[in-house]
Amino acid sequence: MPTINDIADKLGISKGTVSKALNGADDVSETLRKKVLETAVEIGYKRNRARRDTANRLCVLVENINHEDPGDFGYDIVMGFKKMAVPAGWETDIVSITEEQQKEISYDAFMLSREYKGAFIIGMSLLSPWMKELQSARTPAVLYDNYIRENPRVSYIGIDNSEAYMMAIEYLSKLGHTQIGYLGGDMDSFVSRKRHDAFLEAMDAHELRVDPDRIGCSYFISECTHKYLPRLLDSHVTAIVCGTDLLAQSVIASCMDLGYRVPKDVSIIGFDDAPFAAYTNPSLTTIRQNQEALGRCGFYALHSLIGGTCIGTLLLRAELITRDSTGPVRRRKSAPLRKLPVQG
Amino acid sequence: MPTINDIADKLGISKGTVSKALNGADDVSETLRKKVLETAVEIGYKRNRARRDTANRLCVLVENINHEDPGDFGYDIVMGFKKMAVPAGWETDIVSITEEQQKEISYDAFMLSREYKGAFIIGMSLLSPWMKELQSARTPAVLYDNYIRENPRVSYIGIDNSEAYMMAIEYLSKLGHTQIGYLGGDMDSFVSRKRHDAFLEAMDAHELRVDPDRIGCSYFISECTHKYLPRLLDSHVTAIVCGTDLLAQSVIASCMDLGYRVPKDVSIIGFDDAPFAAYTNPSLTTIRQNQEALGRCGFYALHSLIGGTCIGTLLLRAELITRDSTGPVRRRKSAPLRKLPVQG
Repeated sequence: MPTINDIADKLGISKGTVSKALNGADDVSETLRKKVLETAVEIGYKRNRARRDTANRLCVLVENINHEDPGDFGYDIVMGFKKMAVPAGWETDIVSITEEQQKEISYDAFMLSREYKGAFIIGMSLLSPWMKELQSARTPAVLYDNYIRENPRVSYIGIDNSEAYMMAIEYLSKLGHTQIGYLGGDMDSFVSRKRHDAFLEAMDAHELRVDPDRIGCSYFISECTHKYLPRLLDSHVTAIVCGTDLLAQSVIASCMDLGYRVPKDVSIIGFDDAPFAAYTNPSLTTIRQNQEALGRCGFYALHSLIGGTCIGTLLLRAELITRDSTGPVRRRKSAPLRKLPVQG
Repeated sequence: MPTINDIADKLGISKGTVSKALNGADDVSETLRKKVLETAVEIGYKRNRARRDTANRLCVLVENINHEDPGDFGYDIVMGFKKMAVPAGWETDIVSITEEQQKEISYDAFMLSREYKGAFIIGMSLLSPWMKELQSARTPAVLYDNYIRENPRVSYIGIDNSEAYMMAIEYLSKLGHTQIGYLGGDMDSFVSRKRHDAFLEAMDAHELRVDPDRIGCSYFISECTHKYLPRLLDSHVTAIVCGTDLLAQSVIASCMDLGYRVPKDVSIIGFDDAPFAAYTNPSLTTIRQNQEALGRCGFYALHSLIGGTCIGTLLLRAELITRDSTGPVRRRKSAPLRKLPVQG
């Protein structure tokens, strides 16, 4: 087992300096401290956790997700995690982490410097600097809606997107819809990619044709509503599946602006069952993610990883919540709100 | 909440008779007892669990899997489950269940009659009578290597087969193999189907062609070794991925009988890392399933279901264990053990 001496030898500095660097003393420069931490990680140094107050520390690392107020998407996820972790004796910090911070220090070095035994990571995109490092990270990490191949120290938890869209397409199909479009987030997000693929898979399972004109993916909601939505409507879709409720809400508003009635002319389905989903006009049919359950499972997966049980994937069941933004298909017509002969 | 009275009313019998039937009294016929139980399940009757000794009962239902002795495939799975359940205060019965028993009584009625709050089910095939009932079962059930769509009372736990074969094909690919065959179980088993599909997926991801002649699936090992194996060898495969270690072991023996050297002429990979895998000749390269971890996760998923957290899927990481049954590809030649000009 590597010791402080090994770090000192490798860097040609004294044991005392290494110790000070590891403990964040003021008289060690940030550059040296970083070098010590990276070396510690490199040689596999582990702290002696005898000190009671640092024996059981975890963190929830948050990037790009609001979580501070009830109603924020991440709030219940963090709560669910803490509700499991704290009674089980784990001190849990919630740490916001920026892209810049990720560039400054490696994930393992960060965790070592703060004496965290594991992290529950929410909100990272595929482009976040630590995503690459997590491929070979040694400190247990559970990722919400992100997947790392083959590293037994990392778990993926989320909702079963395949099942979710299977339910959505089956439901739309029973309402008579066959011309179904999809609007979602961009391909730099693991979960947006998953949902896009799950939509195609579900359409295929229901033997429904997917016209490429009927799919639009972008990081920007405005691009979905201004650029892709008109194209979908022009191609006579009768239903649109959206990758998030936020997007679905904007799509409803834009449909109405363009003279289409929801759900009479076009049915809309969201994803998440965000707090506002019941209060859009019309109220939003959507797929529920149980955020608190996600948080609870996040803790379990992390606890299992720390104990040596390598959970790779943990998926919660999806639940379809039907409200007023979806309805039976109307017979196809060429433009909305104008009287035209009904076509077979 | 339905009571004993509702059952009595529905069947036109006395409350006392219902109570006796539910408690398994000797003076109630098996036919009537069954009718009472099925009615209880139908109307959603739940027992009042005030009695301490029946408050926390779970069962492990076993079909088609040996589990009684160390070395049996199911032994560590059951152990892992019990090691979590018993300290957490759950009385746990291990119950072998036959197809006949499943035909006699429904799953929910069985669970109600025995006062089990949930079941961890190992070894069922897609054709087992209860598999159909589990689609709408109300009593929590965690299935090892079986998946039920959309029922939030049922979880699937297993190993990540996709990742497993991705690792296996990547490994073979690095050894220079491109002509790879697959032998596995029949399509009446969920996990055999999954592995078959995962093999195709992994080959596709590595841009390797899959010749239909190089795939053989059967419930019977002898059919794999006698019917399919010669066909694979005739089609010049240099490596064979097998769905289980048991099958791989027979395939090694049959290859040798046919004059092929393992791994010189053909590399063989198994699945499971069964206790004997290290002692075959040559020792078997395989994919490890950590059975005890599967059992532990089975308990967690069941505990979560009972608490209302609907885990749909929980997959453990696969681990590739390389031993002596795999090696670098030899240049293709048309028959083994005969000197022929090497073909480019």
